Amino acid sequence: MGRIKEFKDKEALEKAMILFWKKGYENTSLKDLLSEMDILNGSFYNSYGNKKNLFMKTLDFYADEVTAKRGALLADCPNFKEGIRLLFQEMFQCFDDNTAPKGCLLVNSISNDLLQDPEIQKYVKTEIDNFKLFFEEQLREAVETKELESTLDIPLTASIIVTYIQGVMRLSNLNYCTKNFRQQTDIFLTALGI
Amino acid sequence: MGRIKEFKDKEALEKAMILFWKKGYENTSLKDLLSEMDILNGSFYNSYGNKKNLFMKTLDFYADEVTAKRGALLADCPNFKEGIRLLFQEMFQCFDDNTAPKGCLLVNSISNDLLQDPEIQKYVKTEIDNFKLFFEEQLREAVETKELESTLDIPLTASIIVTYIQGVMRLSNLNYCTKNFRQQTDIFLTALGI
Repeated sequence: MGRIKEFKDKEALEKAMILFWKKGYENTSLKDLLSEMDILNGSFYNSYGNKKNLFMKTLDFYADEVTAKRGALLADCPNFKEGIRLLFQEMFQCFDDNTAPKGCLLVNSISNDLLQDPEIQKYVKTEIDNFKLFFEEQLREAVETKELESTLDIPLTASIIVTYIQGVMRLSNLNYCTKNFRQQTDIFLTALGI
Repeated sequence: MGRIKEFKDKEALEKAMILFWKKGYENTSLKDLLSEMDILNGSFYNSYGNKKNLFMKTLDFYADEVTAKRGALLADCPNFKEGIRLLFQEMFQCFDDNTAPKGCLLVNSISNDLLQDPEIQKYVKTEIDNFKLFFEEQLREAVETKELESTLDIPLTASIIVTYIQGVMRLSNLNYCTKNFRQQTDIFLTALGI
């Protein structure tokens, strides 16, 4: 029974995440959530407390299920240049998949207004900082193994990658053809010496 | 009288723009707008029709007053490398100014949900495309005068700049210190050969 409940909870959380991702936090009503997650009001309050709490849980779910898997493509690849290209490729494949929401949960669901909420801002900043640190680590390893030049500015290159990814995520919502994204990203990475 | 009315209209439009910029389109109510613009319901409907119409007018106002002035810093500079740095510098100065909203009106006020509205999506796409074309023109001129290398891929470099700016605009809402933005942008531009 424990496992079935866990599976059902995960399924409901994923449904809530996709709804926030598509509609944004403010535009998603409690009614939308109850109907999409197929649960009753009382059970919602027992499990999640309120809409914001549930939203924070979907952010964690996204970090574990989407961001971590994407990062593993780079971390598991013995070669940085190949790994970073695999990471971008996977992003562009997601954009091409019309059944899934485009872009990034954090970029799409968190309006600038919501971003001024201290708890949300702290969460997003921590995610961005962790993302930068992850790229820093990967870059450092590649410099140590002499795959990348020792003159590379590791922290600033990591910041440039994260900034560029944020831009790609935002623009992906405009339904551009990904061919252009693929070409420009290759030039972008090559120019940076990665 | 005509000039006073024009001035008053412009002032009211700027106030509406700043409200949308700070709060986002969905979070800005008609009541907020009437109070901020200091006009009555009837006069609002006569002048702007509805909230969406007013919003489109503030997007035009932003394009004329903010984006065009920023672009002119590059266009008026005889040297591309210097001009593009002036453009970024002006952006970072705006981020440092705590009295003004950070980021970009289009990034901050248009949620992913609103972006799926065909009229809004068309407007934003046209703005992004024009922004790319503007950079393409500027890059082409600099290649022709031999300031930049003839091997530069002009359309893709323009796309990379626009993508990066979108990322910077999004991240600026997290109140990061602009020192890091300035440093990473210099490395980014130099790597691209611009």
